[in-house]
Amino acid sequence: MKDSDEFSFLKETFKSLGSQYFDTSGIIIGPGDDAGLVENNKETIYSVDASVSGIHFPENLSPHLIAYRSVSTAASDIAACGGSLKWILVSLTVNNKDLSWMRSFVKGLKNFSEDYSCPVLGGDLTKGAQENISITACGELNKENFLKRSGAKEGDLIFLTGTLGQAKKGLKLIEENMAQIDLNSNFVKKFLSPKLNFKFAAELSSIANSCIDVSDGLISDLGHILEASKLGGEINVEKISFVGPVEDALTWGDDYELLMTISPNRKKNLLEISKRFNVEISEIGKITKETNLRVIEKGSLVSFPKSGYNHFNE
Amino acid sequence: MKDSDEFSFLKETFKSLGSQYFDTSGIIIGPGDDAGLVENNKETIYSVDASVSGIHFPENLSPHLIAYRSVSTAASDIAACGGSLKWILVSLTVNNKDLSWMRSFVKGLKNFSEDYSCPVLGGDLTKGAQENISITACGELNKENFLKRSGAKEGDLIFLTGTLGQAKKGLKLIEENMAQIDLNSNFVKKFLSPKLNFKFAAELSSIANSCIDVSDGLISDLGHILEASKLGGEINVEKISFVGPVEDALTWGDDYELLMTISPNRKKNLLEISKRFNVEISEIGKITKETNLRVIEKGSLVSFPKSGYNHFNE
Repeated sequence: MKDSDEFSFLKETFKSLGSQYFDTSGIIIGPGDDAGLVENNKETIYSVDASVSGIHFPENLSPHLIAYRSVSTAASDIAACGGSLKWILVSLTVNNKDLSWMRSFVKGLKNFSEDYSCPVLGGDLTKGAQENISITACGELNKENFLKRSGAKEGDLIFLTGTLGQAKKGLKLIEENMAQIDLNSNFVKKFLSPKLNFKFAAELSSIANSCIDVSDGLISDLGHILEASKLGGEINVEKISFVGPVEDALTWGDDYELLMTISPNRKKNLLEISKRFNVEISEIGKITKETNLRVIEKGSLVSFPKSGYNHFNE
Repeated sequence: MKDSDEFSFLKETFKSLGSQYFDTSGIIIGPGDDAGLVENNKETIYSVDASVSGIHFPENLSPHLIAYRSVSTAASDIAACGGSLKWILVSLTVNNKDLSWMRSFVKGLKNFSEDYSCPVLGGDLTKGAQENISITACGELNKENFLKRSGAKEGDLIFLTGTLGQAKKGLKLIEENMAQIDLNSNFVKKFLSPKLNFKFAAELSSIANSCIDVSDGLISDLGHILEASKLGGEINVEKISFVGPVEDALTWGDDYELLMTISPNRKKNLLEISKRFNVEISEIGKITKETNLRVIEKGSLVSFPKSGYNHFNE
């Protein structure tokens, strides 16, 4: 097989991943044509996110790990809205990589596709100076359950899933030993394949008033909820589950945990579904009328020079 | 306004472009949340395409021209399937550009949005080594009218819209005088803003058996139809409308014309809709049983060393 032929073959392969899930996702015509055709029952939601080499993941990371992480971090937005994942589109820009690179990337897509029963509806493959993976994720939900950033109410309790700071520790471990990444480390796993719990998120969508995934940092992402809801908030550092330095945990993203606000009378329901789906959850503060965010540690207000990740403020 | 604040402002601006078209596109929740929410009436189609600086457009091209062209070339796939354009998602990777760059890019998106009454459902903005614009386009159609690549039938006539080779001439003109691009030149316009005729494509969808847009080159793209339809074809160079060297016209993409096959008894309908929508159209050949493509010039078979554009065969 000529290299160019094999490349075409791989291109087709990466496009038709997860075709066993076409029916459940309403896909009538999958990859290979100018566009993919889908039949929709409910309302649908869409989000796009790019992952760039050297920015979102270390250069020279194994392609299958790049693929898995890029799709996971993009699909996280679907969970944050309370949706169930329906399909993804993959736009891949690569340097003139060899075929083994592509084969490994396809393996990563396949792993994700199987872990989440999610088909690839289509894709695009192009050449560029650095790897750039742009993922469009489509989800399904009932519109009345869309978990908006702007839905927080005064008096809402603020809850957070999981433990922050793990992904940052994982990234550090990866960078310290790129040649032999410890894939069994929970920290490394947290950076490379943040777990997305669409079933929990779907149940959450009928309980919570607002929700966001922690991708830029807790303070920054809670700020997005407060700004959209035109309210303020107060969180207690002691109540937040985290590892590593507190500043890292509160201002570094990449954990892809869910941050939500609920009215106090729904707390019981939230604890019930968290238990049922085995999701670690902490009550970390409450929504207030004053439009500012107060972070309290040992009874005193604390502040951080940087609230979260911004690509253009580096 | 601090640079970072203004940047956030621009980010929001580019995300909410075309909100006047939300209703007609079924958009319930637009940009600004984790995902956009859409209500669907019919079947929908999706396509993604990336445009990379130095590959798809010359480096240092004005950002508003980059934006307009990137969206046009991606949305062309929707027309090629017979769909009407519904919304786009914009994933933009830029180097550390100044705000005037971003403002100009937004202007280009706005121009497209208004020319095609198309809203921007959402977006992502990230930093990288080179500009990379990945556009997801969504279209609407009735599933029975989806114009497949695989729908060609033996005996079908092959038709082509427009005149090939114009975009290549336009690109040459641009590269020769980057400092002062002649935006009134039809060739330049053809490269920078290939005209998409969604209304013509929608009518075409109930007449044609197969269709593709000429993005890689006539021979390559006709090859895609033949391969998908498991048939062959014969085209006559004399019947093809083109400018410049024949090899360029037949093997260079970027014209984004529509190439279609129809059964002979639909020819009259095709000519009628072409006239109605003022679309230049040429009958250039026919579909044959033998699974090869014969290009005939002055009665003799001709062949070209390169059939079309392939990013990884350069």
